[in-house]
Amino acid sequence: MAKRQIAVGIDIGGTNTVFGLVDRDGKIISEGSIQTKEFEDVEVFVAALYEKINVTIRKLGNSAEVLGYGIGAPMGNINNGTIEYPSNLPWKGIIPIAEYFRKYTSLPVTVTNDANAAAVGEMIYGGAKGMKNFVVITLGSGLGSGFVIDGKLVYGANGFAGEIGHTAIRPGASNRMCGCGRKGCLETYVSASGIKRTVLKIMADSIVDSDLRELSFNELNAKIIHDAALKGDPIALEAFEHTGRMLGFKLADVVAHTDPEAIFLFGGLALAQDLIFEPAREYMEEHLLSIYKGKVKLLPSQLSTQNAAVLGASSLVWTLKEF
Amino acid sequence: MAKRQIAVGIDIGGTNTVFGLVDRDGKIISEGSIQTKEFEDVEVFVAALYEKINVTIRKLGNSAEVLGYGIGAPMGNINNGTIEYPSNLPWKGIIPIAEYFRKYTSLPVTVTNDANAAAVGEMIYGGAKGMKNFVVITLGSGLGSGFVIDGKLVYGANGFAGEIGHTAIRPGASNRMCGCGRKGCLETYVSASGIKRTVLKIMADSIVDSDLRELSFNELNAKIIHDAALKGDPIALEAFEHTGRMLGFKLADVVAHTDPEAIFLFGGLALAQDLIFEPAREYMEEHLLSIYKGKVKLLPSQLSTQNAAVLGASSLVWTLKEF
Repeated sequence: MAKRQIAVGIDIGGTNTVFGLVDRDGKIISEGSIQTKEFEDVEVFVAALYEKINVTIRKLGNSAEVLGYGIGAPMGNINNGTIEYPSNLPWKGIIPIAEYFRKYTSLPVTVTNDANAAAVGEMIYGGAKGMKNFVVITLGSGLGSGFVIDGKLVYGANGFAGEIGHTAIRPGASNRMCGCGRKGCLETYVSASGIKRTVLKIMADSIVDSDLRELSFNELNAKIIHDAALKGDPIALEAFEHTGRMLGFKLADVVAHTDPEAIFLFGGLALAQDLIFEPAREYMEEHLLSIYKGKVKLLPSQLSTQNAAVLGASSLVWTLKEF
Repeated sequence: MAKRQIAVGIDIGGTNTVFGLVDRDGKIISEGSIQTKEFEDVEVFVAALYEKINVTIRKLGNSAEVLGYGIGAPMGNINNGTIEYPSNLPWKGIIPIAEYFRKYTSLPVTVTNDANAAAVGEMIYGGAKGMKNFVVITLGSGLGSGFVIDGKLVYGANGFAGEIGHTAIRPGASNRMCGCGRKGCLETYVSASGIKRTVLKIMADSIVDSDLRELSFNELNAKIIHDAALKGDPIALEAFEHTGRMLGFKLADVVAHTDPEAIFLFGGLALAQDLIFEPAREYMEEHLLSIYKGKVKLLPSQLSTQNAAVLGASSLVWTLKEF
């Protein structure tokens, strides 16, 4: 019997790194994770990750043949096989992650950023099937984006297209520090950490009572704010409204640049559904040039939050020659 | 002898409409223009334009064979052959310009916006030869943009990619009305009319003396401001500085979206060279994420201001099947 061909998809996130063994139909046969935060040394991280993946592969016995490794990571650069100046990972500078992997394997290793990987996943397995022009926005610890134009992922001249998380809301008019070293980036407002900061800002400005006032910054997270909003907490509701508006404004820019058929929101904050989609849609429409109004679909990702980045990363292995 | 094949390139601008008879090497064999502003009725405009083109073609005698018409116009839509809701033309709503042309000819008629046409012109004849990822910004009465990704012009899902002129500088924080009906669009700052408005704003705010205070708004134009700046006029210099900064800020967004190799500035304001390039470059770099810093070339168009849009529009005829 022919062996089942497998691509390994790896999603390196600020908190956890998740991997999956994925077949050509996009079925995740086996998966696992390690905690990114625990590894100060990236080479030790790669050694531990590779070992854990290998143990998982061995459990499949002789039935599977691994074809390659697809890595999605913040600031992942497909041109160079590197992670470059990530702001949400424990490591700094330019990290030759593909090279570190190749110490252990002679199989192909590709790297791209997690948002690009999610965009490919959405195109192959999700709500963007059959679409030629769309954008995926990933809302996690940070805010990433992946552009697909004319059916192909946009990498750009340097391999770094799709970093709308690091465009400024109002240049020179925001004091909110970003992990990238600048101020007022979109991801300082629209991300799991961004909405926490907005909650604190609103609590500082307003005198409205709220259960959220019982929690420290470090105790707060997007899920707690989401739950509070569902219970009608005024500060949580205002935080979602504000977050959605900031997003909607920048989505209007996205539309004016590349005129996509749809924009997909993926990740934790997108699970808040109407709380984030309604203000985002309203404010995007308000800021669109008339030719675009009512034409751009703002949709939730059709991939499960857990699997999309892994599937996307794995799909890089299958589509290697296309990019 | 074989007839010389000719593409007709037409650039419909707010003030003038220029056309050229262009050979396959990009040589403009003959050209002409009519005043757009004089025609309240677009069908009368097309009749007059077609007649003038035809007279020019007839002068070439039997040596030339016309292959088709390429039209560049603000809000030109290649998908539909229309001009849709132009803000700088005498006509309103959706204008089926290709259909009007086809009353007179059975040859192919294609329509795109003038900035996209300029981008194709830059790629085929200008400074973007051999580049796969670049953006052209046209600075005329308005501000247009054309994106080329992976060697192909980006049209978008609705045919309207590349309208960065209608993204807002600071949402909700600008009172400057745009021809599109909204406030604070980039083109209200960065365009021939935008810099005039900025001059008036500076004259209103400051008490600095300037020859520009002798001129009415309607007398002012970008060339006068340019000349004044070259003579050291403080208000003209400040206006260019401000204009370049507004542009630079939004160019940082352009880079974060599609990571181009180069951005070309084309049109009247670009002729001011360092006066606009220096602040634009400085402010763009200041607002770039570190991964992009120092990598994106900000360059003047290598096409003459007069011919680029006509060449670009004509090139649509040759490349029809590619798009």
